[in-house]
Amino acid sequence: MLTSSAAGVYVICPTPFEGDGRVDVASTDRMVEAYLKAGATGLTILGIMGEAPKLAADEALAFARQVIKTVAGRVPVVVGVSAAGFAAMSGLSSKVMDAGAAGVMIAPPSTLKTDGQIVSYYADAVEAIGADVPWVIQDYPLTTNVVMTPKVIMRIIEQSPSCVMLKHEDWPGLDKITALRRASDAGQTRRVSILCGNGGMFLPFEMERGADGAMTGYAYPEMLVDVVNLINQGKRTEAHDLFDRHLPLVRYETQPGVGLAVRKYVLKRRGIIATDTLRKPGPKLSPETIAEIEWLMERIERA
Amino acid sequence: MLTSSAAGVYVICPTPFEGDGRVDVASTDRMVEAYLKAGATGLTILGIMGEAPKLAADEALAFARQVIKTVAGRVPVVVGVSAAGFAAMSGLSSKVMDAGAAGVMIAPPSTLKTDGQIVSYYADAVEAIGADVPWVIQDYPLTTNVVMTPKVIMRIIEQSPSCVMLKHEDWPGLDKITALRRASDAGQTRRVSILCGNGGMFLPFEMERGADGAMTGYAYPEMLVDVVNLINQGKRTEAHDLFDRHLPLVRYETQPGVGLAVRKYVLKRRGIIATDTLRKPGPKLSPETIAEIEWLMERIERA
Amino acid sequence: MLTSSAAGVYVICPTPFEGDGRVDVASTDRMVEAYLKAGATGLTILGIMGEAPKLAADEALAFARQVIKTVAGRVPVVVGVSAAGFAAMSGLSSKVMDAGAAGVMIAPPSTLKTDGQIVSYYADAVEAIGADVPWVIQDYPLTTNVVMTPKVIMRIIEQSPSCVMLKHEDWPGLDKITALRRASDAGQTRRVSILCGNGGMFLPFEMERGADGAMTGYAYPEMLVDVVNLINQGKRTEAHDLFDRHLPLVRYETQPGVGLAVRKYVLKRRGIIATDTLRKPGPKLSPETIAEIEWLMERIERA
Amino acid sequence: MLTSSAAGVYVICPTPFEGDGRVDVASTDRMVEAYLKAGATGLTILGIMGEAPKLAADEALAFARQVIKTVAGRVPVVVGVSAAGFAAMSGLSSKVMDAGAAGVMIAPPSTLKTDGQIVSYYADAVEAIGADVPWVIQDYPLTTNVVMTPKVIMRIIEQSPSCVMLKHEDWPGLDKITALRRASDAGQTRRVSILCGNGGMFLPFEMERGADGAMTGYAYPEMLVDVVNLINQGKRTEAHDLFDRHLPLVRYETQPGVGLAVRKYVLKRRGIIATDTLRKPGPKLSPETIAEIEWLMERIERA
Repeated sequence: MLTSSAAGVYVICPTPFEGDGRVDVASTDRMVEAYLKAGATGLTILGIMGEAPKLAADEALAFARQVIKTVAGRVPVVVGVSAAGFAAMSGLSSKVMDAGAAGVMIAPPSTLKTDGQIVSYYADAVEAIGADVPWVIQDYPLTTNVVMTPKVIMRIIEQSPSCVMLKHEDWPGLDKITALRRASDAGQTRRVSILCGNGGMFLPFEMERGADGAMTGYAYPEMLVDVVNLINQGKRTEAHDLFDRHLPLVRYETQPGVGLAVRKYVLKRRGIIATDTLRKPGPKLSPETIAEIEWLMERIERA
Repeated sequence: MLTSSAAGVYVICPTPFEGDGRVDVASTDRMVEAYLKAGATGLTILGIMGEAPKLAADEALAFARQVIKTVAGRVPVVVGVSAAGFAAMSGLSSKVMDAGAAGVMIAPPSTLKTDGQIVSYYADAVEAIGADVPWVIQDYPLTTNVVMTPKVIMRIIEQSPSCVMLKHEDWPGLDKITALRRASDAGQTRRVSILCGNGGMFLPFEMERGADGAMTGYAYPEMLVDVVNLINQGKRTEAHDLFDRHLPLVRYETQPGVGLAVRKYVLKRRGIIATDTLRKPGPKLSPETIAEIEWLMERIERA
Repeated sequence: MLTSSAAGVYVICPTPFEGDGRVDVASTDRMVEAYLKAGATGLTILGIMGEAPKLAADEALAFARQVIKTVAGRVPVVVGVSAAGFAAMSGLSSKVMDAGAAGVMIAPPSTLKTDGQIVSYYADAVEAIGADVPWVIQDYPLTTNVVMTPKVIMRIIEQSPSCVMLKHEDWPGLDKITALRRASDAGQTRRVSILCGNGGMFLPFEMERGADGAMTGYAYPEMLVDVVNLINQGKRTEAHDLFDRHLPLVRYETQPGVGLAVRKYVLKRRGIIATDTLRKPGPKLSPETIAEIEWLMERIERA
Repeated sequence: MLTSSAAGVYVICPTPFEGDGRVDVASTDRMVEAYLKAGATGLTILGIMGEAPKLAADEALAFARQVIKTVAGRVPVVVGVSAAGFAAMSGLSSKVMDAGAAGVMIAPPSTLKTDGQIVSYYADAVEAIGADVPWVIQDYPLTTNVVMTPKVIMRIIEQSPSCVMLKHEDWPGLDKITALRRASDAGQTRRVSILCGNGGMFLPFEMERGADGAMTGYAYPEMLVDVVNLINQGKRTEAHDLFDRHLPLVRYETQPGVGLAVRKYVLKRRGIIATDTLRKPGPKLSPETIAEIEWLMERIERA
C-alpha cells in the first residue's frame, strides 16, 4: 500500500495502443519491464498522459489489471481514478484496489472555484473511494484550471488521513514545495510524500526544495532516476549536468497536446512500445516535428 | 427514430434518486407517465440536468432501459451520451440504441476553442457513434463554455446527415434561431429541428423565431406544451400571458447549480417523484429557498 | 460620502453616446434628471453597463464630472474605477473624489483564482485609492469569473474599514445575502449596505433576504424604486405583482452582451437618451429584436 | 516604419522602476543602450512583460517617448497598445506614432471566443488606430486564452494591409509557423514577418521553421541575437549548442507570474537596471529562488 514515505521515480505510463486503437497488451508488458529496469520505484497508470478519459470503463479496468499483474508486486502501482462523478470514481477505485493497486490518484474537476469548494470536493471524493484507500492529490492547474494554495493542500491533508502524497505540478511551483515542507517540519501539517510531475521541467530544483522524487513520464525515465539519486547523494553539479543534457527534449515533450505524441514516438523509437498511436482526439506528428525529435534524441544519445 | 421534423416538447428528465442516492425506479416510472400525460412529444434523459456524469456506466444504461421500457414506444426517447472520451460515448450510444432509443444528444467538451476544433470534434463523435444514429447538437455555452456560431452549426449539419436536431440554449440566442432558419429557408443549409432549452426562459419568442418546440425540464411541463400549441395556433397574446404567469418560477429554476434542486423539489411537491435528492456534489435547499419556491408555486397554482 | 447605511435604488447609468460615438452631454443631463425623478437614491456611473472600458481616461473623467455637476449633491454618485492596474484606478479615483463623488466601486480582475488572491487584491486596491475613500465591492461572477464566498467578502470587509457596500450580483446569490446578514446580525462581521445588481432579476426576494435595495439599470427604474418601497412597507404581494409584470422585460434586458443595447433602446424610446448607440465592439439590434422589445414595452405600459 | 521584412531580435523591454515604484528613467536609458549593444534590431515596449496595464496612461506615454528619444532612430521601436477599449488604444497609438514609434502591437482580449469574433475584433482595432499604422498581431494564448488558427491569422492579414508582423507565441506553435510559411510560399497569403516570443523556449526550431527572428525579453539577449545569426548562417549545431547552454535559465524565466521578477533580477545583477522592483500585484522572489537564479547565472557565465 502506498504510504507517505514513497520516494524515487513513479513513472507515469502512457496507455499503448495498436494501430487500430485497441489497447496493446504486449507493449504494455514490455513497457512495464523497461520502466522497472530503468529504476522506477513505482508506476502510475490511467493519468492524464495515460489517455484515461479515452478508455471505456471496462478497458481502463482491464489495462490496470494487466499492469498490476505484470508488475507482480515489485513496485507499487498508483491508478488515476479522476472521473466526472463519484459513482464512476468509486467503482474504478474499488476494483483496482481489489486487483492489487497500491493507491489511487485524484485530480480536481475544472468546475471548482473557491478554496472551500476544493476542500469539500476532496472530502466527498474520500467518502466515495473509502477512507482506507491511500490516495494522491494531483495538483496540475495548467490542465485542471484549479489553483490550490499550500493552505488548501494542508486542509485536505488534515481532513483525510488516507491522503499520502501530493503529485506536485503547479507552475510556478518551487516555493509551494518549500512552503509545504516548512509547514511539515514545523509540525503544522502532516508530512506527505511529494513527487513532481509537470514533465520534470524543474526536477533538480524540486528535489532541492524538499520533494521526494518524480512522478512523470519523460521518455528516458532512467535520467529521472539518476537525477533523483544524484541529488540524494549531494552531487548537485552532476545532477544538474545530467538533467540539463536532457532538458531540450524534456522541454519539447512538455508542449501541451502534442507532448504525449512526442513521448510515445520516442518510446516507440526506443523499442519500448510498438506504435505511437493516440486515440482521437489527438495530434498527429508532422514530418518536421519527427525530424526535430530525431535531432534531439541524437544529441542526447551522443552525449 | 428521431428525425429533423421532431417538434413539440421533449421534456428533459431528471434522474430520480431515493434518499440514499440509489436510482428510484418507481419514481422514474411515475415521472414518465406524468410527462406523457402533460403532453410531452418526446423525452430526453441523461442530460446535464439528468445528473448523467454522476451515474456509473451501468447505472446510466439501466436507467435508460427503464425509461425506454416504460415509454414503450409512445414517444421518442433521446439519450445524452456526452462523455470525456469517444469509447464511453460509443459504448453508451450503441447500447441505448439497441434498447430502443430514438437518438442521442452530444454536448461539446469545454476544451474546444476554435471553430475548426468544434467541427472536427463532431466529425469524430459521429464516427464513434456510427453514421446511422440520429443525433442532436447541444449548444449550451453557459455550461460548456463552447460558443458555436450559426456557420459552425451549419458546417456540422452539412458534414453529418445523421444530425437531425439542434438543442438550442445559447444566451442570447434568438438571433441565432433566425439566422439558422433564414439559411435553411434560403436553401443554404439542411433544415433540422430546433428545440429550445435554457430552462425555457425565452420560449414564446423562440417559437416565433422559428423553433419547433422546447427541450427543457421546467417542473410544470404542461405549460411548455400549452405555450408551444398556442404559438402554433397563432394565439400570441394567450401564449405570452400563460408563459409570463410562470416566468417567476422559470427564472427561479434557471439559477445555475441550485436550479436542479428547485426543479426536483417542485416535482416532489407535485407528487411526481418521491424525493428531491441530488447526488453529491450538489446544493441543498435552505429553508428560505424552500419558502420562496412555495410562494412561487402558490402564485402559479392560484392563477 | 457613501456610508454603510446606503439604501434604496442606485441606478446604474449607461453612458449616452451620439450617433458618431461621442459622449452625449445633453442626454446625460436628461438621464440624470429622469433617474432622480424616478426616485433614485443614488447613481452609479462608469460600471460594466456604463461601457467604462470603452472610454479613454479623459472621457471617463469628463463624464463623471458632468454627472456629478448635474446631480449637484441631490444624491450620492458612485463611480466605477475598476482598471487593469492600480495606477489607473488610483488616478481616476482621486480625481472623481475631488470632483465630488461619494465613493467608488471596484470589480476584481478575472485573473484572481484563490480566496487569498481575492482578499489580497482588495488590500492592494484600497492602498491604491487611499483608506479614506468609501468603496463598493462588485461581486459579479458571471462577468468577472471570480467567485467570492461570504467568508471572503467578510475578510475584505474586516481588512478595510472604508468598504461600505456590497454590490451583490452573484447567481445564484440569495443564500449569500442570508449568510452575510446572519453574520452581521450575530456580530461576526461589520454590517455593510447590500445593493443588488444582476439586472434586478431577483429583487423582491433579495430585499426579503436582507438587501437594502438595488443597484442596477433596468430601463424602468421607477419599478425598482416602487418594489423596494413596497417590500419595506411589508406589502409583499403588491411588490411581487408589480415586479412580475416587468419580469418579461427584465429577463430580456438581462441577456449578456445584447442586454445593454436593449436597455439603451428602451431609454431612447422613453425619451431619456437621444440614441441607442453603443461603442464598438457592441451588438446591433435586429429588426426582430426591436419588435420583441416593443411588444414587451407595450404589455408593460398597458398594465 | 515597421515592415513585413523585419527580422532579427526585437527585445521585449521591461519597464524599470525605482524602489518606490516610479518609472526609472536612468535605468531605461541604460537598458536601451545595453540592448542595442547586444545586437537588438528593434525594441518592443509596453507589452505584457513591460507591465503596461500597471502604468497610468500618461506614464505609459512618457515611458514610450523616453525610449524612442534614447533610441534616436537607431532601430525601430514597437509599442504595445492593447487596451480594454478602442478609445484608449487609439489614443496611445496615435501619440506614440507621433513620437516616432515604428509600429504598434495588439493582443486580443480574453473575451473573444469564435474565429469570427477574433477577425472582427482586429478589423475594429485597425479602424481605431488608423489604416496607416503598421501593426503586429500578438498571438499568446497561454496569457490571452484566445486561440488563433493559421486560417484566422491569414484572414486578419488579408483584411488589413497594415498588419506587418506576427508575434508568435502559441504553445505548441512550431507547426503553426510551418503552416503560415507554406501558405505564403504558395501565394495563398501575404508574407508577414514572424518574430517569436514565449520566452524564446523554442527559438532554434522556430527559426528553422521559417521565423524571421525573436521578439522576447530573455535577460541575456545577446544569446538570442547569436542564435538567430547562427541559424541564418546555417550553423545548426553551434546554434543549438549555444541555445541549450542557456535553456536552463530560459526555462526558469518562462515561469508564469514569477518569470518577470526573475528577468528583472538578472538584469539588475548584470548592471542593466537599478532595481528589480515590480509594481503590485507582482511576486516577490524568495531567498531560495534567488539562490537558484544565481546558480543558473553562474553556470551560464562559466560556460
